[in-house]
Amino acid sequence: MVKVGILGAAGYTGGELIRLLINHPQAEIVFANSESNAGNKVYDVHEGLMGDTELEFTSEMPFDQVDVVFFCFGHGKSEAFLKEHSIPANVKIIDMAQDFRIKGDHDYVYGLPETHKEEITKCQHLANPGCFATCIQLGLLPLAKAGLLTKDIAVNAITGSTGAGQKPSATTHFSWRDNNFSVYKLFTHQHLHEICQTLNELKPAEAPHVVDTLDEGYEAEGITVDFIPYRGDFPRGIFCTEVVTLSEAPKGEEIVALYKDFYKDAAFTHYSDKALDLKQVVNTNKALVHVEVFGRKVVITSMIDNLLKGAVGQAVQNMNIMFGLDEKAGLNLKASAF
Amino acid sequence: MVKVGILGAAGYTGGELIRLLINHPQAEIVFANSESNAGNKVYDVHEGLMGDTELEFTSEMPFDQVDVVFFCFGHGKSEAFLKEHSIPANVKIIDMAQDFRIKGDHDYVYGLPETHKEEITKCQHLANPGCFATCIQLGLLPLAKAGLLTKDIAVNAITGSTGAGQKPSATTHFSWRDNNFSVYKLFTHQHLHEICQTLNELKPAEAPHVVDTLDEGYEAEGITVDFIPYRGDFPRGIFCTEVVTLSEAPKGEEIVALYKDFYKDAAFTHYSDKALDLKQVVNTNKALVHVEVFGRKVVITSMIDNLLKGAVGQAVQNMNIMFGLDEKAGLNLKASAF
Amino acid sequence: MVKVGILGAAGYTGGELIRLLINHPQAEIVFANSESNAGNKVYDVHEGLMGDTELEFTSEMPFDQVDVVFFCFGHGKSEAFLKEHSIPANVKIIDMAQDFRIKGDHDYVYGLPETHKEEITKCQHLANPGCFATCIQLGLLPLAKAGLLTKDIAVNAITGSTGAGQKPSATTHFSWRDNNFSVYKLFTHQHLHEICQTLNELKPAEAPHVVDTLDEGYEAEGITVDFIPYRGDFPRGIFCTEVVTLSEAPKGEEIVALYKDFYKDAAFTHYSDKALDLKQVVNTNKALVHVEVFGRKVVITSMIDNLLKGAVGQAVQNMNIMFGLDEKAGLNLKASAF
Amino acid sequence: MVKVGILGAAGYTGGELIRLLINHPQAEIVFANSESNAGNKVYDVHEGLMGDTELEFTSEMPFDQVDVVFFCFGHGKSEAFLKEHSIPANVKIIDMAQDFRIKGDHDYVYGLPETHKEEITKCQHLANPGCFATCIQLGLLPLAKAGLLTKDIAVNAITGSTGAGQKPSATTHFSWRDNNFSVYKLFTHQHLHEICQTLNELKPAEAPHVVDTLDEGYEAEGITVDFIPYRGDFPRGIFCTEVVTLSEAPKGEEIVALYKDFYKDAAFTHYSDKALDLKQVVNTNKALVHVEVFGRKVVITSMIDNLLKGAVGQAVQNMNIMFGLDEKAGLNLKASAF
Repeated sequence: MVKVGILGAAGYTGGELIRLLINHPQAEIVFANSESNAGNKVYDVHEGLMGDTELEFTSEMPFDQVDVVFFCFGHGKSEAFLKEHSIPANVKIIDMAQDFRIKGDHDYVYGLPETHKEEITKCQHLANPGCFATCIQLGLLPLAKAGLLTKDIAVNAITGSTGAGQKPSATTHFSWRDNNFSVYKLFTHQHLHEICQTLNELKPAEAPHVVDTLDEGYEAEGITVDFIPYRGDFPRGIFCTEVVTLSEAPKGEEIVALYKDFYKDAAFTHYSDKALDLKQVVNTNKALVHVEVFGRKVVITSMIDNLLKGAVGQAVQNMNIMFGLDEKAGLNLKASAF
Repeated sequence: MVKVGILGAAGYTGGELIRLLINHPQAEIVFANSESNAGNKVYDVHEGLMGDTELEFTSEMPFDQVDVVFFCFGHGKSEAFLKEHSIPANVKIIDMAQDFRIKGDHDYVYGLPETHKEEITKCQHLANPGCFATCIQLGLLPLAKAGLLTKDIAVNAITGSTGAGQKPSATTHFSWRDNNFSVYKLFTHQHLHEICQTLNELKPAEAPHVVDTLDEGYEAEGITVDFIPYRGDFPRGIFCTEVVTLSEAPKGEEIVALYKDFYKDAAFTHYSDKALDLKQVVNTNKALVHVEVFGRKVVITSMIDNLLKGAVGQAVQNMNIMFGLDEKAGLNLKASAF
Repeated sequence: MVKVGILGAAGYTGGELIRLLINHPQAEIVFANSESNAGNKVYDVHEGLMGDTELEFTSEMPFDQVDVVFFCFGHGKSEAFLKEHSIPANVKIIDMAQDFRIKGDHDYVYGLPETHKEEITKCQHLANPGCFATCIQLGLLPLAKAGLLTKDIAVNAITGSTGAGQKPSATTHFSWRDNNFSVYKLFTHQHLHEICQTLNELKPAEAPHVVDTLDEGYEAEGITVDFIPYRGDFPRGIFCTEVVTLSEAPKGEEIVALYKDFYKDAAFTHYSDKALDLKQVVNTNKALVHVEVFGRKVVITSMIDNLLKGAVGQAVQNMNIMFGLDEKAGLNLKASAF
Repeated sequence: MVKVGILGAAGYTGGELIRLLINHPQAEIVFANSESNAGNKVYDVHEGLMGDTELEFTSEMPFDQVDVVFFCFGHGKSEAFLKEHSIPANVKIIDMAQDFRIKGDHDYVYGLPETHKEEITKCQHLANPGCFATCIQLGLLPLAKAGLLTKDIAVNAITGSTGAGQKPSATTHFSWRDNNFSVYKLFTHQHLHEICQTLNELKPAEAPHVVDTLDEGYEAEGITVDFIPYRGDFPRGIFCTEVVTLSEAPKGEEIVALYKDFYKDAAFTHYSDKALDLKQVVNTNKALVHVEVFGRKVVITSMIDNLLKGAVGQAVQNMNIMFGLDEKAGLNLKASAF
């Protein structure tokens, strides 16, 4: 039984993690930390848990009693927390924030099982990928590995409102968001960092450099990921299209074969022969990918649930891998479907 | 041309009032006051006004330049404002808040045109009815006047999220409210005050007293309005059912005739022979009412747009009456329908 | 391992049943019958199953290979089916339709575990309760058993669109239903039959008869269930309020104690000390109930997911009871929550 | 007073046209034809008209009593209708279908006022543009005219469910569409015909040919409009992004100036300095356009209400121009905003 501690347990990802772990056959929650909610039942804060668990939030952090800690903090707070607190070396850390996703002076492994499974198996500290980043990468990885990303890539991704977190704001106000649609962080979303990092790691040496436009600017040499994020008027899910222009017109079936082969061993990422709709993955840890070809253009659709495969579902998948459990343990979820 | 000043112009009702008045053929906005937004275009705050008006918010309140002032304040602030500011006697006031709806030491007329038209015509100061209160009263008035309200009344009313105002909160967060449903202020909603006041005014002397349970408690002598307010997952509209038990089983056609007769001269309230759905009134100033009879039970459905007939639409209707204009001027609105 | 056959597997309830059973630890689907979809993958019809199962619809009905058959037919078709087909006596039947819910010349047990557990344990044929009927009964049962239902009962229940089934229609058209609200079958919903049957079974002999107004009319002697069904603009869930007027004003804590006691052994029905919102139960098999008291009025809120506790979730719960399995097997579902 | 006849008056566009014309100060509806609804009130079919008009559908078509006929038929039916019926030469025709949008052996003028105002003023027969086509063209026209369209164009456009018409279907079923998202007609939407026609008309001779990929295939010489249509989960509106890659990096302010200048005389199309959200235009006849520049990439956002500027609102605008009325007559609509 893996013993789990949760920091930031009162936020959206914290709640979703609790919803997963109470039914995980090989994990148990030892503590769910939330300073401001200490003493309250978790079901007082998080929907859907009444009757399932009497777990209470605590202000304690008994790291000596756990095997792994999940950081469900907002971005920037994980690093800050570690400066002020000491976590025993034998306790694994799975960080939901973006603090350690980019390689640097740390030992965190980027937790995308479709590309980094070997490293995840052995790692002590893991940086869980971003939601948009997961979905977009899953759409592009097979082409990247095959060296077919040679021109600028057009990416559109629509996210649900849970991506904006729990704190009420003007753009998550129901009166505004319902039946509305908008763009934000046009061409400047912070997930470009991790997307470009992975694409550059995976590509053959001779393939062009993928420019991280946030760091290198839009005039740098190489190809760019032109990413438009949209706010959708639904709570869960990310729906993404990626348009890649190849050097020459490919055969459709070859591209499809490339995708099927790349994901043949993936536990949760599947190629679909048919066009997709978002609710096929909502409330599951699955990613679905579909491809169509028009002349030299390859149009990919990829989609995930932003809170699951885009956040804590993938985190539990990573935990399973890190502890040698069945990769799907606790993640055979009933899709909500409607 | 009626010259209009608006206080609290940056809130939901302020914005909806501006949307109405810019197309009103016989009114013009002289000032739209908002301290915090002074100097900004109104279209920077309120959806749907770009390209229609270059009007800017102002911190000024030039009362000497206007014929009427609309108070679009939150509840309690109208009275507070009047203690600190002096408005010329010749300037009419239309107050959207609940501060003066209950009779007392003031000269504000309750602005429900279906019952108080004579007084509205002559009044200088008007208290615009509440949204729930308008919808529920329109469902009950014909029975009240006929003295048929003799037993406790079961009222259910579902409101859209705009009823909760502009300030983001947990219960207006899109992630929570979308596809959700809940009750609040069960049997204790503050609009009971004005509903009971009108029903008691309208009823024949021999009919039983309608108990204001908020003031008199649930054990007082008389009949009660058992009002359950629900939060719906739509932004606009109130949908209400009222179940009245008569002393003996009426003929359905007599009850229908009662309603048709009561509303035969109403500018915006209509009896429908068919069952209703909310979008028939959304984005209009109309109220629709429908009745069915089962034994001694009369089941009424009534509905309005909470921001229009439930707030500023009715306020403009009242302005029209107060200034001797066509009651429908500026209120021939295209229903959004979808 | 309980071997399961499904008839009508291509409809909404059929799909939801498949979603449950593929993760049930002690059941396996032997066949999923659909004439018109024979040979297609179930994931071609039902959202959320791609990657989880390669099960195909079949036109076969190998009853000799199963322990239990679920009838996921439309109402009226179960009885018709049994006239034309013979099912081996040792095969249990769980019928989702309303064909056998009312006692008569058949041996079907009414499958509400909160009241009929003993009979369910021993039964061969089970009639699964209706969705509205389940939710409303769970709100009223403790009062009925205590003999406190002595006056007409006001019931309001809002249902999601999945209650209307899979076939597209005017009232399930997105353009119409989105942000809309309406009533239907006012005071005449067919579930009144089964509600009244249970209440009359459960009540003490001296308590008044509950009138089935559909059969007996609105003038019959006894008390009535005045049920207004509403169409909500969400896909899943039923949210219900029941207002009961007692003979004298009770103590709130006694009523709460009554509810807590009644449901203390229920696997999925829980009393909540706080006001409810629908998403606490969506995508779960749970029912939550909450009570408030005003004078002689008891106001109950009850809610379920119409496809789960209101249909196939309860059916699987019944299957578990019928086969001596853990009542919660396969039903520890992650709430969608958002 | 322009006398109007409507054919196909019982469909979505027919209904919206009636909603507009009953408040048009210089037009009156002489007949609203619908064979299947003859004798019914229009408010029996179309939301939001009860209390506003007692107009009835008719099976008659008295063309001699009208100045203009609106064809609100499905695609293909306008041409078929004209083969079987004769309309007097002096009666103007405004066709909502796509039958005459492409130049050919007919005298229909393409009714996009932003580019064809002169011809519209004089025309007898008008083909009203498609909804997607209007929105996408308004995003691209200034760059097209300036000869800056020199590379393939990435277009994403999300449409509301009313774009799919009144007939219920699987993809407009509320249970499916609510909180869902999907693509359709990927790179093959029929509006590409009219988009390419206009762009080629408007561009300088030396600028590259815009390939109509539906006719010419994806390998033809020239630049392509790579158009991905999405189904959004809202009823009204089209939200569009267009990414254009210029030959060299422009100055942002020059591009903005180009747009402001192009639309300076447009009655309903406005340039916004701020990022857009869809509800700014819902229930209005307006189009809003916004531009941002990243290196050589110009990212345009354009949006309209698909039933108004994308259909009958633009049709009434065209009627106004054809009859020498104020272009905005009857089109000063209150935005629904929420």
